[in-house]
Amino acid sequence: MSKGNETENPLMPVTARGEATRRKILDAAEEVFGELGYYEASISEITRRAGVAQGTYYIYFHSKRTIFEELVRDIGERLRADMRTAIAGASNRIEIERRGFQAFFQFVASHRRIYSIVQEAERVAPEAFYAYYHKISQGYIRGLQEAMDEGSIRNLDPEAIAYTLMGIGHFIALRWLIWPPEGGQVEYRSELPESVFDSIMEFITNGLAVNLHEHNR
Amino acid sequence: MSKGNETENPLMPVTARGEATRRKILDAAEEVFGELGYYEASISEITRRAGVAQGTYYIYFHSKRTIFEELVRDIGERLRADMRTAIAGASNRIEIERRGFQAFFQFVASHRRIYSIVQEAERVAPEAFYAYYHKISQGYIRGLQEAMDEGSIRNLDPEAIAYTLMGIGHFIALRWLIWPPEGGQVEYRSELPESVFDSIMEFITNGLAVNLHEHNR
Repeated sequence: MSKGNETENPLMPVTARGEATRRKILDAAEEVFGELGYYEASISEITRRAGVAQGTYYIYFHSKRTIFEELVRDIGERLRADMRTAIAGASNRIEIERRGFQAFFQFVASHRRIYSIVQEAERVAPEAFYAYYHKISQGYIRGLQEAMDEGSIRNLDPEAIAYTLMGIGHFIALRWLIWPPEGGQVEYRSELPESVFDSIMEFITNGLAVNLHEHNR
Repeated sequence: MSKGNETENPLMPVTARGEATRRKILDAAEEVFGELGYYEASISEITRRAGVAQGTYYIYFHSKRTIFEELVRDIGERLRADMRTAIAGASNRIEIERRGFQAFFQFVASHRRIYSIVQEAERVAPEAFYAYYHKISQGYIRGLQEAMDEGSIRNLDPEAIAYTLMGIGHFIALRWLIWPPEGGQVEYRSELPESVFDSIMEFITNGLAVNLHEHNR
């Protein structure tokens, strides 16, 4: 464990067993906050589901708010790790976007409730909420700026485009993966309909593409 | 007042004076929910700010949840009315998008807190929340389908593109108009930075544009 991490989170356990217990509590918290929301959730329900004593809980987290903030941070970290793995070795920005969006939708489909947790954080734990999006956007801006500098995508405000792409992912995930299925459909989808994924990728590809006449002038 | 409206909301007042009182209560509710959130807000705080007696409140609304749902519906209606006015007479789909986005960002900048209200509705009053986005998307899908049919924009899944465009508006609004200003800036912006608006419009224009070779084939 790095010094940096210890400073950031002084309660983080250093042994493997401690880390496993902490993970068990965080997973239970994800379940409980996801089902009940922040206000209805309780530490006793979290410890009950995690199968640990309340005393054990307080070794790792100070309060309901602390574990909520930690959960939002943890979700962001897992999502960014999944996306980094997915885009490793991609040969150009469009391929990075395609693989990144695929990994994002997969993550959302297998952690459906995380979305309402992160959204609820805007009011309950605004610092954790801003940090979540800020960290995602930082990597995005860097990648887009590089691709703009080498002329492989259109030259636009990279932060505006980062939030544009994050907004597309967020709303498409809400509509097809998070909100209750419509009509006769009873089960949640495990992935987007193909026509939806293809449509957004075609839209994004053309939105980012360099105009030929601009490129040559 | 139409029969349809009375059926939809049997408590809605029919006199101009009643409507003014109802409006005053809704405006106070917008303030209180925006500042305190759903759980901390109380009917007594709403009536205090509106300057009406609790007895008067119950002529118009059954409960805290009822007025919250009505507020989400009301916000959606005002936003859609502003956007309809803005796009009236626009000559093509790109011009409709430009004017619609302008009207949307103006609405958000002058009703900052509405955004957290609508987002909180996802948990507190999910039916009102889905109805809000469903209604916005319906008009959007119709307009995009027409433009696709006449060949003025790329032929894609119109619902996927409607949610794509709504997602862009939502996230750009969050970043530049809703979240607390960053760095040395102390006041909220009344509009987007020009480079941001221009970048998203260029991205959207090219995302929607028909490829020349596709158009001719």
